[in-house]
Amino acid sequence: MVAPALLPELWTEILVPICAVIGIAFSLFQWYVVSRVKLTSDLGASSSGGANNGKNGYGDYLIEEEEGVNDQSVVAKCAEIQTAISEGATSFLFTEYKYVGVFMIFFAAVIFVFLGSVEGFSTDNKPCTYDTTRTCKPALATAAFSTIAFVLGAVTSVLSGFLGMKIATYANARTTLEARKGVGKAFIVAFRSGAVMGFLLAASGLLVLYITINVFKIYYGDDWEGLFEAITGYGLGGSSMALFGRVGGGIYTKAADVGADLVGKIERNIPEDDPRNPAVIADNVGDNVGDIAGMGSDLFGSYAEASCAALVVASISSFGINHDFTAMCYPLLISSMGILVCLITTLFATDFFEIKLVKEIEPALKNQLIISTVIMTVGIAIVSWVGLPTSFTIFNFGTQKVVKNWQLFLCVCVGLWAGLIIGFVTEYYTSNAYSPVQDVADSCRTGAATNVIFGLALGYKSVIIPIFAIAISIFVSFSFAAMYGVAVAALGMLSTIATGLAIDAYGPISDNAGGIAEMAGMSHRIRERTDALDAAGNTTAAIGKGFAIGSAALVSLALFGAFVSRAGIHTVDVLTPKVIIGLLVGAMLPYWFSAMTMKSVGSAALKMVEEVRRQFNTIPGLMEGTAKPDYATCVKISTDASIKEMIPPGCLVMLTPLIVGFFFGVETLSGVLAGSLVSGVQIAISASNTGGAWDNAKKYIEAGVSEHAKSLGPKGSEPHKAAVIGDTIGDPLKDTSGPSLNILIKLMAVESLVFAPFFATHGGILFKYF
Amino acid sequence: MVAPALLPELWTEILVPICAVIGIAFSLFQWYVVSRVKLTSDLGASSSGGANNGKNGYGDYLIEEEEGVNDQSVVAKCAEIQTAISEGATSFLFTEYKYVGVFMIFFAAVIFVFLGSVEGFSTDNKPCTYDTTRTCKPALATAAFSTIAFVLGAVTSVLSGFLGMKIATYANARTTLEARKGVGKAFIVAFRSGAVMGFLLAASGLLVLYITINVFKIYYGDDWEGLFEAITGYGLGGSSMALFGRVGGGIYTKAADVGADLVGKIERNIPEDDPRNPAVIADNVGDNVGDIAGMGSDLFGSYAEASCAALVVASISSFGINHDFTAMCYPLLISSMGILVCLITTLFATDFFEIKLVKEIEPALKNQLIISTVIMTVGIAIVSWVGLPTSFTIFNFGTQKVVKNWQLFLCVCVGLWAGLIIGFVTEYYTSNAYSPVQDVADSCRTGAATNVIFGLALGYKSVIIPIFAIAISIFVSFSFAAMYGVAVAALGMLSTIATGLAIDAYGPISDNAGGIAEMAGMSHRIRERTDALDAAGNTTAAIGKGFAIGSAALVSLALFGAFVSRAGIHTVDVLTPKVIIGLLVGAMLPYWFSAMTMKSVGSAALKMVEEVRRQFNTIPGLMEGTAKPDYATCVKISTDASIKEMIPPGCLVMLTPLIVGFFFGVETLSGVLAGSLVSGVQIAISASNTGGAWDNAKKYIEAGVSEHAKSLGPKGSEPHKAAVIGDTIGDPLKDTSGPSLNILIKLMAVESLVFAPFFATHGGILFKYF
Repeated sequence: MVAPALLPELWTEILVPICAVIGIAFSLFQWYVVSRVKLTSDLGASSSGGANNGKNGYGDYLIEEEEGVNDQSVVAKCAEIQTAISEGATSFLFTEYKYVGVFMIFFAAVIFVFLGSVEGFSTDNKPCTYDTTRTCKPALATAAFSTIAFVLGAVTSVLSGFLGMKIATYANARTTLEARKGVGKAFIVAFRSGAVMGFLLAASGLLVLYITINVFKIYYGDDWEGLFEAITGYGLGGSSMALFGRVGGGIYTKAADVGADLVGKIERNIPEDDPRNPAVIADNVGDNVGDIAGMGSDLFGSYAEASCAALVVASISSFGINHDFTAMCYPLLISSMGILVCLITTLFATDFFEIKLVKEIEPALKNQLIISTVIMTVGIAIVSWVGLPTSFTIFNFGTQKVVKNWQLFLCVCVGLWAGLIIGFVTEYYTSNAYSPVQDVADSCRTGAATNVIFGLALGYKSVIIPIFAIAISIFVSFSFAAMYGVAVAALGMLSTIATGLAIDAYGPISDNAGGIAEMAGMSHRIRERTDALDAAGNTTAAIGKGFAIGSAALVSLALFGAFVSRAGIHTVDVLTPKVIIGLLVGAMLPYWFSAMTMKSVGSAALKMVEEVRRQFNTIPGLMEGTAKPDYATCVKISTDASIKEMIPPGCLVMLTPLIVGFFFGVETLSGVLAGSLVSGVQIAISASNTGGAWDNAKKYIEAGVSEHAKSLGPKGSEPHKAAVIGDTIGDPLKDTSGPSLNILIKLMAVESLVFAPFFATHGGILFKYF
Repeated sequence: MVAPALLPELWTEILVPICAVIGIAFSLFQWYVVSRVKLTSDLGASSSGGANNGKNGYGDYLIEEEEGVNDQSVVAKCAEIQTAISEGATSFLFTEYKYVGVFMIFFAAVIFVFLGSVEGFSTDNKPCTYDTTRTCKPALATAAFSTIAFVLGAVTSVLSGFLGMKIATYANARTTLEARKGVGKAFIVAFRSGAVMGFLLAASGLLVLYITINVFKIYYGDDWEGLFEAITGYGLGGSSMALFGRVGGGIYTKAADVGADLVGKIERNIPEDDPRNPAVIADNVGDNVGDIAGMGSDLFGSYAEASCAALVVASISSFGINHDFTAMCYPLLISSMGILVCLITTLFATDFFEIKLVKEIEPALKNQLIISTVIMTVGIAIVSWVGLPTSFTIFNFGTQKVVKNWQLFLCVCVGLWAGLIIGFVTEYYTSNAYSPVQDVADSCRTGAATNVIFGLALGYKSVIIPIFAIAISIFVSFSFAAMYGVAVAALGMLSTIATGLAIDAYGPISDNAGGIAEMAGMSHRIRERTDALDAAGNTTAAIGKGFAIGSAALVSLALFGAFVSRAGIHTVDVLTPKVIIGLLVGAMLPYWFSAMTMKSVGSAALKMVEEVRRQFNTIPGLMEGTAKPDYATCVKISTDASIKEMIPPGCLVMLTPLIVGFFFGVETLSGVLAGSLVSGVQIAISASNTGGAWDNAKKYIEAGVSEHAKSLGPKGSEPHKAAVIGDTIGDPLKDTSGPSLNILIKLMAVESLVFAPFFATHGGILFKYF
C-alpha cells in the first residue's frame, strides 16, 4: 500500500471547482470590459456627447474626428454589419447543430446498444475486467453512463463553440471602433475577447467533467474502473462534435473565402472585404463558424480526451486501486492550475504592459506563450508535489510500473515545453519576418507554379522539428510512466489552453474587424491598423494549429494505449499480417479524408464563384457601388455545401473504427490507429504551415515593408497575383483539411477506446469465421 | 526431411541462364530491327534513291514527299538533334557516375569495415547464426563478399540505366522519321526500343545475379546462410545507384522542363520544344537521364532487392537447410519464366497485330499488361509445380511455418494481379479519357488555384484502391508464407518487368520524338502523330510508376522482415517507446526527403529561368529564329544543379539507417522502416498521380477532342494557362519526389538488412549507456 498524496481529498474536492469558477468569473469580467465599448447609435451618441471632455473617455483622438467623418453613422454602420455577421453565424450554427444533433442521437443509441450487448444487456454485477477478484457494476450501466457522458461532452463542445462565436461576433465591430483610437486599444479589445473564449472553454470543460465524475460516483461508488470507463464517453462526445464543427465550419469558411477571392481579387480587381462582393458576408461569417467555433470545439475535444485517457489509465493503476482521489484527480488539478497560470499570464498583455506600436503586437502575443509556459512549469511542480504520492504504480500493458512523482512532473513538463517549441517552429515557418516565407514570396517572381512548389516544400520541411519534439516527448513520458505519462504530457501541452485559445481566437476577430472597417467604408488608416493586428493573428493562428496537432498526436497515442489495455491485447506487433495491413490502411485514411474535404471546398467554391459572377453580371450598378449585392444567396450556398459535404468525411472517421473493430478485430484496429496517427500528424502539420506561409507571403508582398518586398509588389503586380493563387490554394489546406486531421486521429482513438469492451467481446468476426 | 522439387538441380542450373540469354538475344534482335531505320544522310540518300520502288521499302508515303519538303535535309537535321541529345545525356551520366562512383567506393569501404568488425575481423569460422550447431564462414568473408556484391549491383544498375539511355537516344529520331509514314510505324519503333531496354535489364539483372550466386558458392560451399547474406549486397548496390540516378536525373529533367516551360510557354508564348528556347536540349536530355536511366535503375533495384529478400529468407527455411538448389532458385525461376512470357507478350504488339489508328495505341499498351499478366499466371503455376516441393517450411520470426506449393503460387499471383489493378487504377486517375482528369481540367475555368486544389484532391483519392490492393497482397502472402510470401508477391508484381519497362520507356522516347519533330521544323501533322504517341505514353508512365511503387512497398516489407529476422528480434511492438518514436520519425522522412527534392527542383528551375530570360533578352534575333540559342549553358545549369542537389537527399536516405541503427538500435530502426514504408507509399502514389493528372488535363485542353475540352481551350486561353501552371507544379511531384520515394523506402530496408549483423552486435549504443 503506497502512501496517499499530500493534498487531502476534501481540499481536492473544493479546489478544482473553485479554480473552474474563478476561470468563468474572469472570463465574464473580460466580457464586461469588452462590452464597455459602446456600439449602439444611442449610446454612441451619448459617448460622443461626452467626447468633448476627454475624447470618448480616453485620452486618444478618433481618426474620424480628425478627418471630419460623422462618428455616429460609422458606429451605426459597424453595428449593422456586426449584426449581419452574427445572425449569419448563429443561423448557420443552429442549422449545423440540428443535423449533427440527429446524428448524435443516433450515435448515442449505437453506443448504448453496442456497449450494452457486451454482457447481453444483463443487469447483474460482474467480475471486474482487470482485478477479477472484485465485483464491478454491469456492462449495461457502463453503456448507459457512457451514453450520458457522450451527450454531455457533445453539449459542452457545442457550448464552447457557440459561445466562442458569440463573443467573437460581439467583439469584431468593437475592435474596429477601437482601432480609431490606436492600434493598442484595438489589440486589447480583440485580445480580451479571445480570453473570454479561452477561459470559458477551459473552465467549463473542467467543471462539467468534475461534476460528471462526482455525480457518476454516487452510482459507481468504489467501482472506479467502471466509473472512468464510462467517463471516456465525455471525450468521444466532445470530439465527435468537434469533427463536424471543424469540417462543416472549414468548408463553409473556405468556400466563401475562395469564392470571394477568385472573383473579387483576381477577376474584378476589387480589394478584400469590399462590400460590393456578394460573398463578403459569408466570408466573415465563415471566420467565426470555422476558425472560432471549430477551433473551440477542437481544443475542447483534445482537452476532454487527454483527461479521459489519463483518468482511465489511472483508474487501473495504484491511484484507482487504492482509491486515492487526489492522485486520481491529478489531471484535473493540472488543468485547475493551468487556469490560474493563464489568468496571471493574461494580465501581462492586458494590464501590466501596454501596446502602442504595431511592431509590439507579435512579441506581446509570443510573450504570452513564453510567460504561461514558464509559470506553468512552477505550477506543475507544485501540483506534482502536493497532488501525487512520492511513489506509485502505473498500469503498463498487463504489468504495474513503479513511478516517482518527479518523473510524472517531467512527463507533464516535456509536453508543455514541446508545445512551446512546436509553436515557435510554426512561427518561424509561417511568419513573414523570417526567410522561409520570404523565399516563398521571392519565388512568386517566376509565377504561381514556383510559388506552389516552394510552398509545398516549406510545409514538408516544417514537419521535421515538431516531429522530433513530439517523438522526444513520447519517448520521455512513455519511458517514465507508460501511457499515463503520454496522457499527462498531452495535458501539459494543453494546460495553457486558455492562453493558447485567447491568442488563437484573437486572429479571426482582428480579421473580421478589418472586414468591418472595409465594409463600413472607414478610413484607410484604420484598415492598416486592423491589417497589422490580422497579420500577427495569422501567425498565432498557425501556432495554435501547431499546438492542436501536437497535443492531438500525444492524446491519440495515450487513447490508443488505453484502448489496447482495455481490449486486452499486450503487444501490437507490426510483423503480423493483421497489424501491418491496418498500419498501411490507417496511414491512407488521412489522404482519403483530405481528398474529400479538399474536393468539397473546391466544388463549393466553384458554385460560389458562379453565383458571385452572376451577381456582378446581372445586378446593374453593383460594381459602381450604387446597388447592394444579394449577400443571403451566398450565405445559403456556403451553408448548404458545408452541411451536405461534412457528412461523408464525418462518416469515414466515425465508421472506420466500428467497421474495422467489428469485422477485423482489435489487432487490425490497433494498426489502423497507429497508421493514421503517424501519417495524419505529418499531413496536418505540413498542410497548416504551407497554407499559413502562402497567406503571409501574400501579405508580405502587399505590406511592402522591406526593399525586397517592395520589389515584388505592389498589389496587382504579377508576383502578387501569383501569391494570391498560392493563398487561395492554401485556404482549404490550412483551414479545412489540416485542422480536421487532428480530430480524425484523436476521434478514431477515443471511439476505439469507448467501444473497446464491445470489440474485445464481439469484434473480428471475419477472422473468427474464416 | 521434405522431398525436393521436381526439377533436377542440373536443369535449374541450365534453364536460368538460358532464359537470361534468350532475353538478351531478343533485346539485341529488337535493337537490330530499330537500327534498320536509317538516319545518316548517306544512307538516307540511298534509301531515298530506292524510294522510287516501294517508297522507302514500305508501302507508305512520306508526309514530306506529299508536301514537297527535302527528305535529306530533314533526316540530317533529326540526326544532328539526336546526336546533341545523346551527347548531352552521355556527358551528364558520366559526370553523375563519377561523383556517385566516389560515394560508392566510400560506401563499399563502410560496408567492409562495419561488417568485418562484427567478429572483430576474425578469419576463423564461427557457429552459424540460426543453426548454431553448424559452422559457418567468418563474418569477415561475408563482409568481403557483401562488398563485392554491392559493387556488382551498382555496376549492373549503371549499365541498366546507361544502356537504356543509349537505346532511347538512338530510337527517338528514328521514331520521328517513322512518324512520317504513319502513327503505326512510329509506334512500333518506339515500342521496340522500349522492349530493348526492358529485356536487356530483366535478363542482365537475372544473369549477373545467377553468376554471382554460383561464383560465391565456390567459396561458401554448403554455408548457404552466409552465401545469401552476402548476396543481399547486390540489392543494396542496385538500389543505392538507383537513388542517385532517380534523384539526380529527376532534378536534371525537371529543372530544365520547368525552366523551359515558365519562360517559353508562359512568358514568350512559344510552343513546347521550340528550337528557339535555350533550355530545349536540356529538357530533352532530361527525359533520357531522368525518366529512362532513372526508371531503369529503379526497377532493376526493385527486382534485385525482391530476389535478395526472397533468397535470404529461403536460405534459413527448409530450402536452405535441405540444400534444395532448385527450390532455392524459385525466385530466379519466376524471373526466367517472366522473360519468356514477356517475349510472347511483346509479339502481340509488334507482330501479331498492327496499329493503324491513334485510338488503337492506348489499348495496345494496356493489352500488353493484361496479356502478360494472364500468361504469367500460367507460367507461375508451372514454375511452382516443378520448382517447389509440395510441402516445405518457411522461417517465420523464430519458428518454421509449413507451406504448400499451391500457397506459394497464390502468393506470387496475388502480387502479379495487384500490380495489374494498381496499373489500371492509376490509368483511371491519370488518363484524360475518364472523369477524374476531366474534372480537374474543368476546374481550370476558375483559374490555377482550383486546378491545384482539385489536382491535389485527385492524387489523395487515387491512393485508396492501390493501398487496399497492396494490403490484400500483403495479408494473403504474409498469412500463407510469412516474409518469403511477401517477397515472392513482390517478385510476382515484377515478373512482367520486361513488358512494364517496355511500355514505360516508350513514353519518353515518344516525347523526345515529338521534340525532335518540332526542333527539326517538321510538318505539324508529324507533331500531331508524336503527340498522340506521347499522350498514351504519359498514362503508361504513370502506370509504370504505380507498379514501381506497389512493388517497392512489398519489397521493402519483405526486406524489413528479413532485417528483423537477421537482427534477432522477434516482435516489433508499436507500444514500446523505442518503436513508436521510430514509427513517427520514419513517417516523417518522406516529407523531409520531398522537401529537399522539391526545393532543389524549384531553385534549379529559378536559375534556368534567369538564364533563358537572359538569352532571350541579350541574344539579338533569337525570338525571330535567326540566331541560335546557347544550349550548352542550360545543359550546364541542369548538370551542376542536379549533381549538387542530389547529395543531401541521398545522404539523408543512406545515413538514416546507419545513424538510427548505431545509436538507437534495431527496435527503433524497425519503427523507422515501418513508418517510412506506410507513409512514403501514400505520398509516392499521390504525388505521381497528381502530377500525371495535371499533365493530361493540360493535354486534354490542348487536344480539344470533345465539346467539353473545346470549351476550355484552345492553347493560350485562360483555362489553358491555369492548366499549364498545374502541369508545371506536377513536374517535380511526378518525376522527382514521387518516384524517388519508392527508392527511399526500399533502400533504407535493404541497407538495414545488409548492416543487420553489425547493428545486432554493436547497435543501439545510446540506450546501452543511458
